[in-house]
Amino acid sequence: MTRRFDQLVSDLREVSLMASIQSTLEWDEQVMMPPGGASHRADQKAWLARTMHARQTNPAFGEALVGAEQEHAADPSNGEEGALLRQARRSYDRAVKLPGSLVEELARTTAHAHHAWVDARKANEPSRFAPWLGRIIDLKKQQAACLAGPGQGTYDVLVDEFEPGETTAHLREIFGALRAPLVDLVGRVASSGRRPPVEVLAKQWPVAAQEALGREAAKALGYDFERGRLDVSVHPFSISLGPGDSRITTRYTADRFEGAFFGVMHETGHALYEQGLPSDRWGTPLGEAVSLGVHESQSRLWENLVGRSRAFWRYFYPKAVAAFPEALAGVREEQFVAAVNAIAPSEIRVEADEATYNLHILLRFEIEQALMDGSLRPDDVPQAWNDALHAMLGVRPSSDARGCLQDVHWSGGAIGYFPTYTLGNLFSAQLFEAAKRDLGDLDGQFERGEFTPLREWLRQHVHRHGQRYTPQELLTRATGAAPSVEPLLAHLRRKAAEVYGV
Amino acid sequence: MTRRFDQLVSDLREVSLMASIQSTLEWDEQVMMPPGGASHRADQKAWLARTMHARQTNPAFGEALVGAEQEHAADPSNGEEGALLRQARRSYDRAVKLPGSLVEELARTTAHAHHAWVDARKANEPSRFAPWLGRIIDLKKQQAACLAGPGQGTYDVLVDEFEPGETTAHLREIFGALRAPLVDLVGRVASSGRRPPVEVLAKQWPVAAQEALGREAAKALGYDFERGRLDVSVHPFSISLGPGDSRITTRYTADRFEGAFFGVMHETGHALYEQGLPSDRWGTPLGEAVSLGVHESQSRLWENLVGRSRAFWRYFYPKAVAAFPEALAGVREEQFVAAVNAIAPSEIRVEADEATYNLHILLRFEIEQALMDGSLRPDDVPQAWNDALHAMLGVRPSSDARGCLQDVHWSGGAIGYFPTYTLGNLFSAQLFEAAKRDLGDLDGQFERGEFTPLREWLRQHVHRHGQRYTPQELLTRATGAAPSVEPLLAHLRRKAAEVYGV
Repeated sequence: MTRRFDQLVSDLREVSLMASIQSTLEWDEQVMMPPGGASHRADQKAWLARTMHARQTNPAFGEALVGAEQEHAADPSNGEEGALLRQARRSYDRAVKLPGSLVEELARTTAHAHHAWVDARKANEPSRFAPWLGRIIDLKKQQAACLAGPGQGTYDVLVDEFEPGETTAHLREIFGALRAPLVDLVGRVASSGRRPPVEVLAKQWPVAAQEALGREAAKALGYDFERGRLDVSVHPFSISLGPGDSRITTRYTADRFEGAFFGVMHETGHALYEQGLPSDRWGTPLGEAVSLGVHESQSRLWENLVGRSRAFWRYFYPKAVAAFPEALAGVREEQFVAAVNAIAPSEIRVEADEATYNLHILLRFEIEQALMDGSLRPDDVPQAWNDALHAMLGVRPSSDARGCLQDVHWSGGAIGYFPTYTLGNLFSAQLFEAAKRDLGDLDGQFERGEFTPLREWLRQHVHRHGQRYTPQELLTRATGAAPSVEPLLAHLRRKAAEVYGV
Repeated sequence: MTRRFDQLVSDLREVSLMASIQSTLEWDEQVMMPPGGASHRADQKAWLARTMHARQTNPAFGEALVGAEQEHAADPSNGEEGALLRQARRSYDRAVKLPGSLVEELARTTAHAHHAWVDARKANEPSRFAPWLGRIIDLKKQQAACLAGPGQGTYDVLVDEFEPGETTAHLREIFGALRAPLVDLVGRVASSGRRPPVEVLAKQWPVAAQEALGREAAKALGYDFERGRLDVSVHPFSISLGPGDSRITTRYTADRFEGAFFGVMHETGHALYEQGLPSDRWGTPLGEAVSLGVHESQSRLWENLVGRSRAFWRYFYPKAVAAFPEALAGVREEQFVAAVNAIAPSEIRVEADEATYNLHILLRFEIEQALMDGSLRPDDVPQAWNDALHAMLGVRPSSDARGCLQDVHWSGGAIGYFPTYTLGNLFSAQLFEAAKRDLGDLDGQFERGEFTPLREWLRQHVHRHGQRYTPQELLTRATGAAPSVEPLLAHLRRKAAEVYGV
């Protein structure tokens, strides 16, 4: 460590500190703030964003970065230092390439667009949102033009924002390799003649018991409530307000068990990643999650690979029965496990099963590309959406609110974000397979309520590295192979065989 | 309005925006934050305090102020503008007079001192806190030396920080006028031979019902939950996170009704003031509460003058019975009202009745002065405290934890703060008397659940003015007389006559 490098770290930490205040405002807004606070909260966030952008693009910051890079070039032996500089350079270049006016315009437009989306969804009128989507697409094109590196197309830039190093071409390969096997699998399941007893889930699930059980599950997986909390919000999420404070939320409805429970498992997975980052590197890239895809791999791993496994419920089903003595009276464990593993085409992404989920993402991936290259106009999205869903899954959305208006992402300017969900699914299966190789009888461990070995394996191979490696490098080091669709497909085929005998 | 004045307003608003972010961090820390977040939260707050102090003492800010003052001097007809400039000048002068190093040292010392106080109270060992108190006294002396105006003594400066325009000499007059009548009143009550049936309150009060009833009471008084919320914290408080977001907290114990209920009434009074400030003046002195004494007058008015009145319970007792069918079975309304109006010496300030409360404050006022003028050493506070309480109220604290260590204030550097509680009590009685003169049959209104006339009167005469007038001017304009001890003494004598026949 040297003086200019230390100055850079101190600068990075100040920006991260500001970002963590932004996160605190964000959490409060989503979870606590009364309606009357909305307008002022927007002012607070705008001030902080402006102050943060000014700090990030301050020439002194750029000088500290150049100085630290020169020091590193003179002695490039420290790989961690090199990784930190690579990521700091990436962020700095992105910040200075974006004019403040565009940053502000995007912030303002998406704030309005969010309200327009809420209205449009409530009224089931996509035409109310279409003009805003058009405006956002224009701004995202401008943003991409500012940020594009050599050979990068518009959609490449957008994807790279969320998943560093990822490209449109590579995503097309992935979805190309997923599509036919998934459609085939879903078709074989449908014509298997078998149907898991999903009616065992059609009960009343008292919300207080749901909350207590979710809390117990999160604790069992290793979520540290001394450094986090579980609350309720309209859109479930996880967020870090600083090292030692990583919070999760969910939402409850008395007539559904799976939504909140697997939601808590999911957000717990995200939070375990955050709680596993090295706190002594906080505020630098080495203390931050590496990508959205890797983040999602952690949530999906605990939600699906662990949370929907027979072995997990071997341990946890008695607790569920104790929590819901009426709803689960007379329901056998294997019925319950089969029911939470049902595969069936549906219209809502966040309620989709593991197999059809990625087809929902593929649909969005294709529509986003068409919107960005101009071959699809915002007004034509509803038709294109419904046709594509029907072609892939044989269902049509019952309304646009439950079709193309179901997701919040586009209204916030998050175009190119959806594919990271599928990357997360791929990574989760591949990491789980590698962990199983290393740790042996994972099922036996789960049956005894032992989740520490798996969590520590993830900490060791994923969490503790922060942004030391690229997502691709990280996966390859952890699993011994480049990211691939095979582990996920293998997992889904095993599940279909178990539940449907196909 | 002119250009330089507008610039000043914009500068003031930016500082207020930063302060409102600070409040958001503070609320979260007290109400939500998991223990693991404490250290990072201190970093966030320190960064914000530093950034805010830099903004406040920025030469450009001083120039905008001077410019606006010159404009105003050229045309002094706008009284609101004059008031804004007077208060902006006061804040600016205080900020630039305090060296950043002293501000930081105070922040750091009080952060540690707070933990030392918590430890000392838990262990019942005042000697653990005494060195910190000594250090704080030193720093407050330095602070006072920086801020002192002509003729101001050290304690004057400290008092003036919380109650602009207030002086030690005037406070001595007030306490001099209160002491003998209060001691006499408490003595006559004790020897009256009567005792309200306080045993009707020695019941179990389910916490969920307490919360629901508190919420109902706050709503009845006019607290707008669309612009606020009610939560639980260790130390109850009220705080504004911005216009449209004024929150309150309380704490519940199942074996006590009065603590949480009158706590909610109290904090609601504070929040009604905040909700009644002119939101179009937000971020300037005209949109901010004028002093702690006036703030406390609002909380005490709703808590005591309204909340402990026969008329209020005429309306509200049936709701209490519905909320606590077991605890209040067979308890007559007049027994209940007498019980919540019992006057009896006790050791804890926040649990003291209306009459003895101000003697608790007098004790602190005298000890603070002795600490600041050096005639009392921190190590000797426990003895002095216990002797003074015994002399005034005839009781000795059962422990130092329930004696000189009971209050958080000194550990946070708030010396000179306590007298504002007694000012609040005086102002509350005087304002209530004036409102009664203007509004006629207040009791009749309360009995019918009509609190709007009183709230609107307070909005009209107190809330909407912000810092347009000094606290003394505000009181005089609202009540037709300078602040005086007489309305409070008259109120307490009436109450003693009602409950004890003396």
